[in-house]
Amino acid sequence: MTYGVGIKLNAGLVFLSDSRTNAGVDNISTFRKMIVYEKPGDRFMVLLSAGNLSISQSVREILQVEQLKEHEEAEPVTIWNVRSMFDAARVLGQTVRHVYDRDAEALKFAGVEFNVSLIFGGQIRGEPMRLFHVYSAGNFIEATAETPYFQIGESKYGKPVLDRVLTPDTPLDEAAKCALVSMDSTMKSNLSVGPPLDLVVYDVDRFETDKIACLDMNNPYYRMLHSSWGQKLRDVFDSLDDPVWDDAHTETPLKVDTGRSKPLKKISRPEERLI
Amino acid sequence: MTYGVGIKLNAGLVFLSDSRTNAGVDNISTFRKMIVYEKPGDRFMVLLSAGNLSISQSVREILQVEQLKEHEEAEPVTIWNVRSMFDAARVLGQTVRHVYDRDAEALKFAGVEFNVSLIFGGQIRGEPMRLFHVYSAGNFIEATAETPYFQIGESKYGKPVLDRVLTPDTPLDEAAKCALVSMDSTMKSNLSVGPPLDLVVYDVDRFETDKIACLDMNNPYYRMLHSSWGQKLRDVFDSLDDPVWDDAHTETPLKVDTGRSKPLKKISRPEERLI
Repeated sequence: MTYGVGIKLNAGLVFLSDSRTNAGVDNISTFRKMIVYEKPGDRFMVLLSAGNLSISQSVREILQVEQLKEHEEAEPVTIWNVRSMFDAARVLGQTVRHVYDRDAEALKFAGVEFNVSLIFGGQIRGEPMRLFHVYSAGNFIEATAETPYFQIGESKYGKPVLDRVLTPDTPLDEAAKCALVSMDSTMKSNLSVGPPLDLVVYDVDRFETDKIACLDMNNPYYRMLHSSWGQKLRDVFDSLDDPVWDDAHTETPLKVDTGRSKPLKKISRPEERLI
Repeated sequence: MTYGVGIKLNAGLVFLSDSRTNAGVDNISTFRKMIVYEKPGDRFMVLLSAGNLSISQSVREILQVEQLKEHEEAEPVTIWNVRSMFDAARVLGQTVRHVYDRDAEALKFAGVEFNVSLIFGGQIRGEPMRLFHVYSAGNFIEATAETPYFQIGESKYGKPVLDRVLTPDTPLDEAAKCALVSMDSTMKSNLSVGPPLDLVVYDVDRFETDKIACLDMNNPYYRMLHSSWGQKLRDVFDSLDDPVWDDAHTETPLKVDTGRSKPLKKISRPEERLI
Protein backbone atom coordinates (compact mmCIF):
# COMPACT_ATOMS: atom_id res chain seq x y z
CA MET A 1 0.00 0.00 0.00
CA THR A 2 0.96 3.65 -0.06
CA TYR A 3 0.07 6.78 1.77
CA GLY A 4 0.68 10.16 0.19
CA VAL A 5 -0.67 13.63 0.86
CA GLY A 6 -0.35 16.92 -1.03
CA ILE A 7 -1.43 20.24 0.52
CA LYS A 8 -1.92 23.64 -1.10
CA LEU A 9 -1.76 26.65 1.21
CA ASN A 10 -1.52 30.36 0.58
CA ALA A 11 2.09 30.15 1.73
CA GLY A 12 3.10 27.24 -0.47
CA LEU A 13 2.85 23.49 -1.00
CA VAL A 14 3.57 20.46 1.19
CA PHE A 15 4.07 16.91 -0.10
CA LEU A 16 4.65 13.79 1.97
CA SER A 17 4.79 10.14 0.94
CA ASP A 18 5.81 6.83 2.43
CA SER A 19 7.95 4.33 0.54
CA ARG A 20 6.59 0.87 1.27
CA THR A 21 5.30 -1.28 -1.55
CA ASN A 22 3.66 -4.63 -1.12
CA ALA A 23 2.44 -7.40 -3.33
CA GLY A 24 0.56 -9.24 -0.63
CA VAL A 25 1.91 -9.07 2.91
CA ASP A 26 4.85 -11.36 2.23
CA ASN A 27 6.44 -9.34 -0.54
CA ILE A 28 7.30 -5.93 0.83
CA SER A 29 9.84 -3.62 -0.73
CA THR A 30 10.94 -0.01 -0.55
CA PHE A 31 10.15 2.25 -3.50
CA ARG A 32 10.12 6.03 -3.43
CA LYS A 33 6.80 7.42 -4.58
CA MET A 34 7.68 11.08 -5.00
CA ILE A 35 9.43 12.90 -7.82
CA VAL A 36 10.50 16.54 -7.78
CA TYR A 37 10.74 18.37 -11.12
CA GLU A 38 12.56 21.66 -10.85
CA LYS A 39 13.78 24.23 -13.39
CA PRO A 40 14.91 26.97 -10.99
CA GLY A 41 13.28 30.32 -11.59
CA ASP A 42 10.85 28.85 -14.12
CA ARG A 43 8.87 25.89 -12.78
CA PHE A 44 8.59 23.54 -9.82
CA MET A 45 6.44 20.41 -9.75
CA VAL A 46 6.01 17.39 -7.51
CA LEU A 47 4.40 14.07 -8.43
CA LEU A 48 3.20 11.48 -5.88
CA SER A 49 1.97 8.10 -7.06
CA ALA A 50 -0.05 5.23 -5.64
CA GLY A 51 -1.51 2.09 -7.15
CA ASN A 52 0.11 -0.56 -9.30
CA LEU A 53 3.86 0.10 -9.23
CA SER A 54 4.48 -1.04 -12.79
CA ILE A 55 1.94 1.52 -13.98
CA SER A 56 3.18 4.40 -11.87
CA GLN A 57 6.81 3.74 -12.81
CA SER A 58 5.84 3.70 -16.49
CA VAL A 59 3.91 6.93 -16.05
CA ARG A 60 6.90 8.57 -14.37
CA GLU A 61 9.30 7.40 -17.07
CA ILE A 62 7.12 8.36 -20.00
CA LEU A 63 6.09 11.70 -18.47
CA GLN A 64 9.65 12.86 -18.98
CA VAL A 65 9.21 12.72 -22.76
CA GLU A 66 5.43 12.69 -23.27
CA GLN A 67 4.16 15.42 -25.56
CA LEU A 68 0.70 16.85 -25.79
CA LYS A 69 -0.45 18.01 -29.24
CA GLU A 70 -3.73 19.81 -29.74
CA HIS A 71 -3.67 18.97 -33.44
CA GLU A 72 -1.12 17.73 -35.97
CA GLU A 73 0.41 21.13 -36.73
CA ALA A 74 0.50 22.32 -33.12
CA GLU A 75 3.73 22.81 -31.23
CA PRO A 76 4.25 19.77 -28.96
CA VAL A 77 4.19 20.55 -25.26
CA THR A 78 5.73 18.62 -22.35
CA ILE A 79 5.78 19.28 -18.61
CA TRP A 80 9.05 21.13 -19.28
CA ASN A 81 7.58 23.71 -21.66
CA VAL A 82 3.85 23.91 -20.88
CA ARG A 83 2.63 27.38 -19.96
CA SER A 84 0.34 26.34 -17.13
CA MET A 85 0.00 23.69 -14.44
CA PHE A 86 -3.38 22.83 -15.93
CA ASP A 87 -1.65 21.88 -19.18
CA ALA A 88 0.99 19.98 -17.19
CA ALA A 89 -1.82 18.01 -15.53
CA ARG A 90 -3.26 17.32 -18.99
CA VAL A 91 0.13 15.99 -20.14
CA LEU A 92 0.18 13.76 -17.06
CA GLY A 93 -3.37 12.56 -17.74
CA GLN A 94 -2.39 11.82 -21.34
CA THR A 95 0.62 9.88 -20.07
CA VAL A 96 -1.67 7.74 -17.91
CA ARG A 97 -3.84 7.03 -20.98
CA HIS A 98 -0.71 6.21 -22.96
CA VAL A 99 0.23 3.54 -20.40
CA TYR A 100 -3.38 2.38 -20.30
CA ASP A 101 -3.39 1.82 -24.05
CA ARG A 102 -0.16 -0.14 -23.79
CA ASP A 103 -0.82 -2.27 -20.68
CA ALA A 104 -4.48 -2.35 -19.62
CA GLU A 105 -5.60 -5.21 -21.84
CA ALA A 106 -2.76 -7.51 -20.81
CA LEU A 107 -3.30 -6.58 -17.15
CA LYS A 108 -7.02 -7.29 -17.42
CA PHE A 109 -6.23 -10.63 -19.01
CA ALA A 110 -4.07 -11.39 -15.97
CA GLY A 111 -6.85 -10.30 -13.60
CA VAL A 112 -5.07 -7.09 -12.57
CA GLU A 113 -7.02 -3.85 -12.43
CA PHE A 114 -5.49 -0.80 -14.12
CA ASN A 115 -5.08 1.16 -10.92
CA VAL A 116 -3.04 4.32 -10.49
CA SER A 117 -3.68 7.47 -8.47
CA LEU A 118 -1.53 10.57 -8.63
CA ILE A 119 -1.13 13.84 -6.78
CA PHE A 120 0.51 16.47 -8.95
CA GLY A 121 1.17 20.04 -7.89
CA GLY A 122 3.49 22.94 -8.38
CA GLN A 123 3.91 26.35 -9.89
CA ILE A 124 4.96 27.71 -13.26
CA ARG A 125 6.18 31.31 -13.52
CA GLY A 126 3.32 33.69 -14.31
CA GLU A 127 0.75 31.43 -12.64
CA PRO A 128 -0.43 30.75 -9.10
CA MET A 129 0.34 27.39 -7.48
CA ARG A 130 -2.01 24.54 -8.37
CA LEU A 131 -2.61 21.06 -7.00
CA PHE A 132 -4.30 18.20 -8.86
CA HIS A 133 -5.49 14.66 -8.21
CA VAL A 134 -5.15 12.55 -11.37
CA TYR A 135 -7.10 9.30 -11.70
CA SER A 136 -6.62 6.03 -13.59
CA ALA A 137 -8.69 7.33 -16.51
CA GLY A 138 -6.38 10.31 -16.91
CA ASN A 139 -9.05 12.74 -15.69
CA PHE A 140 -8.27 15.03 -12.79
CA ILE A 141 -9.66 17.40 -10.17
CA GLU A 142 -8.09 20.46 -8.57
CA ALA A 143 -7.76 21.39 -4.91
CA THR A 144 -9.73 24.45 -3.73
CA ALA A 145 -9.81 26.64 -0.63
CA GLU A 146 -12.52 24.43 0.87
CA THR A 147 -10.52 21.26 0.25
CA PRO A 148 -6.88 22.32 0.30
CA TYR A 149 -5.41 18.81 0.25
CA PHE A 150 -5.50 15.47 -1.56
CA GLN A 151 -4.63 12.02 -0.26
CA ILE A 152 -3.72 8.89 -2.21
CA GLY A 153 -3.51 5.29 -1.06
CA GLU A 154 -4.46 4.36 2.49
CA SER A 155 -6.19 7.64 3.28
CA LYS A 156 -8.69 7.00 6.06
CA TYR A 157 -6.58 6.61 9.21
CA GLY A 158 -4.80 9.89 8.57
CA LYS A 159 -7.76 11.99 7.41
CA PRO A 160 -9.24 13.22 10.73
CA VAL A 161 -6.19 15.32 11.70
CA LEU A 162 -6.03 16.92 8.24
CA ASP A 163 -9.71 17.86 8.49
CA ARG A 164 -9.22 19.35 11.93
CA VAL A 165 -6.13 21.44 11.15
CA LEU A 166 -5.79 22.47 7.51
CA THR A 167 -7.10 25.71 6.03
CA PRO A 168 -5.52 27.82 3.26
CA ASP A 169 -4.09 30.09 6.00
CA THR A 170 -2.22 27.30 7.78
CA PRO A 171 1.53 28.12 7.89
CA LEU A 172 3.77 25.83 5.86
CA ASP A 173 5.69 24.27 8.73
CA GLU A 174 2.48 23.63 10.65
CA ALA A 175 1.04 21.90 7.60
CA ALA A 176 4.20 19.79 7.32
CA LYS A 177 3.76 18.81 10.97
CA CYS A 178 0.10 17.99 10.26
CA ALA A 179 1.06 15.78 7.31
CA LEU A 180 3.60 13.94 9.47
CA VAL A 181 1.05 13.37 12.26
CA SER A 182 -1.37 12.09 9.62
CA MET A 183 1.34 9.73 8.33
CA ASP A 184 2.13 8.60 11.88
CA SER A 185 -1.51 7.60 12.50
CA THR A 186 -1.55 5.73 9.20
CA MET A 187 1.65 3.81 9.87
CA LYS A 188 0.36 2.87 13.33
CA SER A 189 -2.73 1.22 11.84
CA ASN A 190 -1.52 -0.12 8.49
CA LEU A 191 1.65 -2.19 8.31
CA SER A 192 1.84 -1.81 4.54
CA VAL A 193 2.59 1.91 4.89
CA GLY A 194 6.16 2.45 6.03
CA PRO A 195 9.37 4.46 6.13
CA PRO A 196 11.43 6.17 4.90
CA LEU A 197 9.21 9.20 4.37
CA ASP A 198 9.83 11.80 1.69
CA LEU A 199 8.87 15.34 2.67
CA VAL A 200 9.00 18.37 0.37
CA VAL A 201 7.94 21.90 1.29
CA TYR A 202 7.69 24.61 -1.36
CA ASP A 203 7.46 28.37 -0.63
CA VAL A 204 5.16 30.22 -3.01
CA ASP A 205 6.81 32.09 -5.93
CA ARG A 206 10.24 30.55 -5.33
CA PHE A 207 10.21 28.13 -8.34
CA GLU A 208 12.69 25.91 -6.47
CA THR A 209 13.14 24.47 -3.01
CA ASP A 210 15.84 23.14 -0.74
CA LYS A 211 13.29 21.93 1.80
CA ILE A 212 13.55 18.25 0.92
CA ALA A 213 13.97 15.68 3.67
CA CYS A 214 14.01 11.92 3.90
CA LEU A 215 12.90 10.74 7.34
CA ASP A 216 13.45 7.26 8.68
CA MET A 217 12.29 6.12 12.10
CA ASN A 218 15.54 7.38 13.67
CA ASN A 219 14.93 10.92 12.46
CA PRO A 220 15.03 13.16 15.58
CA TYR A 221 12.04 15.27 14.57
CA TYR A 222 9.89 12.31 13.60
CA ARG A 223 10.77 10.48 16.82
CA MET A 224 9.80 13.54 18.88
CA LEU A 225 6.52 13.88 16.98
CA HIS A 226 5.68 10.19 17.23
CA SER A 227 6.25 9.89 20.98
CA SER A 228 4.84 13.30 21.96
CA TRP A 229 1.70 12.92 19.88
CA GLY A 230 0.99 9.45 21.25
CA GLN A 231 1.60 10.50 24.85
CA LYS A 232 -0.28 13.79 24.72
CA LEU A 233 -3.21 12.25 22.88
CA ARG A 234 -3.43 9.80 25.73
CA ASP A 235 -3.23 12.65 28.27
CA VAL A 236 -6.08 14.46 26.53
CA PHE A 237 -8.14 11.30 26.48
CA ASP A 238 -7.53 10.82 30.20
CA SER A 239 -8.44 14.44 30.92
CA LEU A 240 -11.96 14.01 29.53
CA ASP A 241 -14.59 12.97 32.06
CA ASP A 242 -15.69 9.36 31.91
CA PRO A 243 -19.42 8.90 31.36
CA VAL A 244 -21.49 8.76 34.55
CA TRP A 245 -24.62 6.63 34.50
CA ASP A 246 -26.20 8.19 37.56
CA ASP A 247 -27.65 11.51 36.35
CA ALA A 248 -27.69 13.04 39.83
CA HIS A 249 -23.92 13.27 40.03
CA THR A 250 -22.92 14.95 36.79
CA GLU A 251 -23.49 18.03 34.72
CA THR A 252 -23.16 16.02 31.51
CA PRO A 253 -25.54 13.08 31.91
CA LEU A 254 -25.34 10.17 29.52
CA LYS A 255 -28.98 9.15 29.86
CA VAL A 256 -31.35 11.96 29.07
CA ASP A 257 -34.80 11.82 27.60
CA THR A 258 -34.87 14.28 24.73
CA GLY A 259 -38.18 12.83 23.65
CA ARG A 260 -36.82 11.93 20.23
CA SER A 261 -34.50 8.95 20.58
CA LYS A 262 -35.77 6.13 22.74
CA PRO A 263 -33.31 3.78 24.46
CA LEU A 264 -33.25 0.25 23.07
CA LYS A 265 -35.88 -2.16 24.29
CA LYS A 266 -34.39 -5.41 25.53
CA ILE A 267 -35.51 -8.73 24.09
CA SER A 268 -36.09 -11.20 26.88
CA ARG A 269 -38.16 -14.03 25.38
CA PRO A 270 -37.87 -16.11 22.20
CA GLU A 271 -41.31 -15.10 21.01
CA GLU A 272 -40.79 -11.38 21.52
CA ARG A 273 -41.33 -9.09 18.53
CA LEU A 274 -38.18 -7.27 17.48
CA ILE A 275 -39.67 -4.15 15.98
CA MET B 1 -22.82 2.77 6.06
CA THR B 2 -22.54 1.73 9.68
CA TYR B 3 -20.03 1.96 12.45
CA GLY B 4 -20.17 -0.44 15.37
CA VAL B 5 -17.66 -1.47 18.00
CA GLY B 6 -17.71 -4.20 20.64
CA ILE B 7 -15.10 -4.33 23.43
CA LYS B 8 -14.32 -7.12 25.89
CA LEU B 9 -12.54 -6.09 29.09
CA ASN B 10 -11.87 -7.86 32.34
CA ALA B 11 -14.53 -5.65 33.92
CA GLY B 12 -17.21 -6.25 31.33
CA LEU B 13 -18.38 -5.49 27.81
CA VAL B 14 -19.01 -2.27 25.89
CA PHE B 15 -21.09 -2.00 22.71
CA LEU B 16 -21.67 1.10 20.61
CA SER B 17 -23.36 1.53 17.24
CA ASP B 18 -24.63 4.33 15.05
CA SER B 19 -28.02 4.20 13.36
CA ARG B 20 -27.62 5.64 9.89
CA THR B 21 -28.36 3.50 6.86
CA ASN B 22 -27.83 4.56 3.31
CA ALA B 23 -28.57 3.19 -0.13
CA GLY B 24 -26.40 5.66 -1.99
CA VAL B 25 -25.98 9.13 -0.54
CA ASP B 26 -29.47 10.25 -1.48
CA ASN B 27 -31.39 7.61 0.41
CA ILE B 28 -30.49 7.88 4.07
CA SER B 29 -32.60 6.47 6.87
CA THR B 30 -32.35 5.70 10.56
CA PHE B 31 -32.23 2.06 11.63
CA ARG B 32 -31.01 0.79 14.98
CA LYS B 33 -28.25 -1.77 14.57
CA MET B 34 -28.04 -3.14 18.07
CA ILE B 35 -30.16 -5.73 19.86
CA VAL B 36 -29.92 -6.63 23.55
CA TYR B 37 -30.99 -10.15 24.58
CA GLU B 38 -31.39 -10.50 28.32
CA LYS B 39 -32.69 -13.27 30.58
CA PRO B 40 -31.79 -11.77 33.96
CA GLY B 41 -29.61 -13.98 36.11
CA ASP B 42 -29.08 -16.45 33.26
CA ARG B 43 -27.76 -14.84 30.08
CA PHE B 44 -27.00 -11.49 28.51
CA MET B 45 -26.09 -11.00 24.83
CA VAL B 46 -25.73 -8.10 22.43
CA LEU B 47 -25.77 -8.25 18.65
CA LEU B 48 -24.48 -5.46 16.36
CA SER B 49 -24.99 -5.70 12.63
CA ALA B 50 -23.54 -4.05 9.52
CA GLY B 51 -23.91 -4.72 5.82
CA ASN B 52 -27.02 -5.19 3.73
CA LEU B 53 -29.98 -4.20 5.93
CA SER B 54 -32.37 -6.76 4.43
CA ILE B 55 -29.91 -9.48 5.38
CA SER B 56 -29.20 -8.25 8.89
CA GLN B 57 -32.88 -7.72 9.65
CA SER B 58 -33.63 -11.26 8.46
CA VAL B 59 -30.80 -12.61 10.58
CA ARG B 60 -32.12 -10.79 13.63
CA GLU B 61 -35.67 -12.00 13.08
CA ILE B 62 -34.75 -15.61 12.41
CA LEU B 63 -32.19 -15.75 15.23
CA GLN B 64 -35.09 -15.50 17.66
CA VAL B 65 -36.34 -18.92 16.59
CA GLU B 66 -33.35 -20.53 14.85
CA GLN B 67 -32.39 -23.92 16.27
CA LEU B 68 -29.09 -25.70 16.01
CA LYS B 69 -29.22 -29.49 15.86
CA GLU B 70 -26.08 -31.59 15.99
CA HIS B 71 -27.98 -34.54 14.54
CA GLU B 72 -31.60 -35.55 14.01
CA GLU B 73 -32.18 -36.93 17.50
CA ALA B 74 -30.34 -34.15 19.30
CA GLU B 75 -32.15 -31.64 21.48
CA PRO B 76 -32.57 -28.42 19.44
CA VAL B 77 -30.70 -25.43 20.85
CA THR B 78 -31.39 -21.70 20.39
CA ILE B 79 -29.63 -18.63 21.77
CA TRP B 80 -32.13 -18.86 24.64
CA ASN B 81 -31.08 -22.31 25.83
CA VAL B 82 -27.52 -22.87 24.59
CA ARG B 83 -25.01 -23.65 27.32
CA SER B 84 -22.19 -21.49 25.99
CA MET B 85 -21.58 -18.28 24.06
CA PHE B 86 -19.60 -20.37 21.57
CA ASP B 87 -22.74 -22.36 20.81
CA ALA B 88 -24.74 -19.13 20.64
CA ALA B 89 -22.25 -17.84 18.05
CA ARG B 90 -22.71 -21.10 16.13
CA VAL B 91 -26.49 -20.59 16.17
CA LEU B 92 -25.92 -17.07 14.85
CA GLY B 93 -23.57 -18.36 12.14
CA GLN B 94 -26.14 -20.97 11.16
CA THR B 95 -28.78 -18.23 10.98
CA VAL B 96 -26.57 -16.28 8.57
CA ARG B 97 -26.25 -19.41 6.40
CA HIS B 98 -30.01 -19.91 6.59
CA VAL B 99 -30.54 -16.41 5.16
CA TYR B 100 -27.79 -17.03 2.61
CA ASP B 101 -29.53 -20.16 1.36
CA ARG B 102 -32.78 -18.24 1.04
CA ASP B 103 -31.56 -14.94 -0.48
CA ALA B 104 -28.03 -15.12 -1.88
CA GLU B 105 -28.88 -16.41 -5.34
CA ALA B 106 -31.57 -13.81 -5.96
CA LEU B 107 -29.30 -11.08 -4.63
CA LYS B 108 -26.45 -12.21 -6.87
CA PHE B 109 -28.82 -12.20 -9.82
CA ALA B 110 -29.61 -8.56 -8.95
CA GLY B 111 -25.91 -7.73 -8.69
CA VAL B 112 -26.00 -7.38 -4.89
CA GLU B 113 -23.30 -9.01 -2.81
CA PHE B 114 -24.36 -11.11 0.18
CA ASN B 115 -22.76 -8.85 2.74
CA VAL B 116 -23.35 -8.95 6.47
CA SER B 117 -20.97 -8.47 9.38
CA LEU B 118 -21.90 -9.04 13.00
CA ILE B 119 -20.45 -8.44 16.44
CA PHE B 120 -21.94 -10.77 19.01
CA GLY B 121 -20.94 -10.87 22.65
CA GLY B 122 -22.23 -11.60 26.10
CA GLN B 123 -22.16 -13.99 28.99
CA ILE B 124 -24.06 -17.13 29.95
CA ARG B 125 -24.09 -18.24 33.59
CA GLY B 126 -21.25 -20.66 34.31
CA GLU B 127 -19.05 -19.19 31.57
CA PRO B 128 -16.75 -16.19 31.20
CA MET B 129 -17.79 -13.35 28.88
CA ARG B 130 -17.03 -13.86 25.19
CA LEU B 131 -17.02 -11.63 22.14
CA PHE B 132 -17.26 -12.79 18.51
CA HIS B 133 -17.07 -11.34 15.03
CA VAL B 134 -19.35 -13.28 12.67
CA TYR B 135 -18.83 -13.02 8.91
CA SER B 136 -21.07 -13.39 5.84
CA ALA B 137 -20.13 -17.06 5.51
CA GLY B 138 -21.35 -17.76 9.04
CA ASN B 139 -17.80 -18.36 10.29
CA PHE B 140 -16.52 -16.36 13.24
CA ILE B 141 -13.50 -15.34 15.28
CA GLU B 142 -13.22 -14.52 18.97
CA ALA B 143 -11.65 -11.50 20.68
CA THR B 144 -8.54 -12.15 22.77
CA ALA B 145 -6.49 -10.21 25.31
CA GLU B 146 -4.22 -8.96 22.51
CA THR B 147 -7.17 -7.76 20.44
CA PRO B 148 -9.93 -6.97 22.92
CA TYR B 149 -12.28 -5.31 20.43
CA PHE B 150 -14.01 -5.77 17.08
CA GLN B 151 -15.28 -3.13 14.66
CA ILE B 152 -17.85 -3.48 11.89
CA GLY B 153 -18.65 -1.13 9.03
CA GLU B 154 -16.63 2.03 8.51
CA SER B 155 -13.80 1.03 10.84
CA LYS B 156 -10.71 2.93 9.79
CA TYR B 157 -11.29 6.50 10.97
CA GLY B 158 -12.04 5.35 14.50
CA LYS B 159 -9.39 2.66 14.86
CA PRO B 160 -6.33 4.69 15.99
CA VAL B 161 -7.84 5.76 19.33
CA LEU B 162 -8.97 2.20 20.11
CA ASP B 163 -5.44 0.95 19.43
CA ARG B 164 -3.94 3.61 21.65
CA VAL B 165 -6.23 3.14 24.65
CA LEU B 166 -7.75 -0.32 24.97
CA THR B 167 -6.25 -3.17 26.97
CA PRO B 168 -8.11 -5.86 28.95
CA ASP B 169 -7.46 -3.80 32.11
CA THR B 170 -9.17 -0.65 30.80
CA PRO B 171 -12.06 0.32 33.14
CA LEU B 172 -15.54 0.03 31.65
CA ASP B 173 -16.44 3.71 31.67
CA GLU B 174 -13.10 4.64 30.14
CA ALA B 175 -13.70 2.09 27.38
CA ALA B 176 -17.16 3.57 26.80
CA LYS B 177 -15.54 6.99 26.48
CA CYS B 178 -12.99 5.53 24.06
CA ALA B 179 -15.74 3.99 21.92
CA LEU B 180 -17.55 7.33 21.81
CA VAL B 181 -14.38 9.20 20.79
CA SER B 182 -13.84 6.56 18.09
CA MET B 183 -17.43 7.11 16.91
CA ASP B 184 -16.94 10.88 16.96
CA SER B 185 -13.89 10.65 14.67
CA THR B 186 -15.83 8.37 12.32
CA MET B 187 -18.87 10.63 12.12
CA LYS B 188 -16.59 13.62 11.46
CA SER B 189 -15.10 11.92 8.38
CA ASN B 190 -17.98 9.82 7.03
CA LEU B 191 -21.38 11.38 6.53
CA SER B 192 -23.03 7.99 6.17
CA VAL B 193 -22.36 7.21 9.85
CA GLY B 194 -24.74 9.15 12.08
CA PRO B 195 -26.83 9.53 15.22
CA PRO B 196 -28.57 8.48 17.34
CA LEU B 197 -25.96 6.26 18.98
CA ASP B 198 -26.82 3.18 21.01
CA LEU B 199 -24.48 2.49 23.92
CA VAL B 200 -24.62 -0.56 26.17
CA VAL B 201 -22.24 -1.33 29.02
CA TYR B 202 -22.32 -4.70 30.79
CA ASP B 203 -20.64 -5.44 34.14
CA VAL B 204 -19.12 -8.93 34.33
CA ASP B 205 -21.18 -11.63 36.09
CA ARG B 206 -24.32 -9.50 36.30
CA PHE B 207 -26.33 -11.30 33.54
CA GLU B 208 -28.33 -8.11 33.01
CA THR B 209 -27.68 -4.40 32.64
CA ASP B 210 -29.43 -1.09 33.05
CA LYS B 211 -26.57 0.79 31.42
CA ILE B 212 -28.32 1.38 28.12
CA ALA B 213 -28.30 4.84 26.59
CA CYS B 214 -29.40 6.38 23.33
CA LEU B 215 -27.36 9.48 22.49
CA ASP B 216 -28.33 12.06 19.93
CA MET B 217 -26.25 15.12 19.14
CA ASN B 218 -27.96 17.08 21.94
CA ASN B 219 -26.85 14.59 24.56
CA PRO B 220 -24.93 16.58 27.19
CA TYR B 221 -22.14 14.01 27.60
CA TYR B 222 -21.63 13.51 23.88
CA ARG B 223 -21.59 17.26 23.29
CA MET B 224 -18.96 17.72 25.98
CA LEU B 225 -16.87 14.89 24.53
CA HIS B 226 -17.19 16.16 20.95
CA SER B 227 -16.19 19.74 21.67
CA SER B 228 -13.51 18.98 24.29
CA TRP B 229 -11.84 16.29 22.20
CA GLY B 230 -11.74 18.49 19.12
CA GLN B 231 -10.41 21.50 21.03
CA LYS B 232 -7.84 19.63 23.10
CA LEU B 233 -6.61 17.63 20.13
CA ARG B 234 -5.98 20.93 18.44
CA ASP B 235 -4.18 22.24 21.56
CA VAL B 236 -1.94 19.18 21.59
CA PHE B 237 -1.20 19.60 17.91
CA ASP B 238 -0.29 23.25 18.48
CA SER B 239 1.93 22.33 21.44
CA LEU B 240 4.19 20.15 19.29
CA ASP B 241 7.18 21.93 17.77
CA ASP B 242 6.92 22.72 14.08
CA PRO B 243 9.71 21.24 11.98
CA VAL B 244 12.78 23.47 11.64
CA TRP B 245 14.74 23.20 8.41
CA ASP B 246 17.88 24.86 9.73
CA ASP B 247 19.65 22.18 11.79
CA ALA B 248 21.63 24.71 13.83
CA HIS B 249 18.56 25.99 15.67
CA THR B 250 16.88 22.82 16.92
CA GLU B 251 17.44 19.72 18.99
CA THR B 252 15.19 17.71 16.71
CA PRO B 253 16.44 18.37 13.18
CA LEU B 254 14.36 17.33 10.20
CA LYS B 255 17.28 16.86 7.83
CA VAL B 256 19.84 14.43 9.14
CA ASP B 257 22.13 12.14 7.23
CA THR B 258 21.75 8.69 8.78
CA GLY B 259 23.66 7.23 5.86
CA ARG B 260 20.77 4.95 4.97
CA SER B 261 18.02 7.02 3.42
CA LYS B 262 19.10 9.53 0.84
CA PRO B 263 17.01 12.64 0.16
CA LEU B 264 15.27 12.65 -3.21
CA LYS B 265 17.28 13.78 -6.20
CA LYS B 266 15.52 16.48 -8.19
CA ILE B 267 14.84 16.02 -11.90
CA SER B 268 15.74 19.16 -13.75
CA ARG B 269 16.00 18.21 -17.44
CA PRO B 270 13.75 16.23 -19.79
CA GLU B 271 16.48 13.74 -20.58
CA GLU B 272 17.42 13.06 -16.97
CA ARG B 273 17.29 9.44 -15.79
CA LEU B 274 14.77 8.89 -13.04
CA ILE B 275 16.38 5.98 -11.25
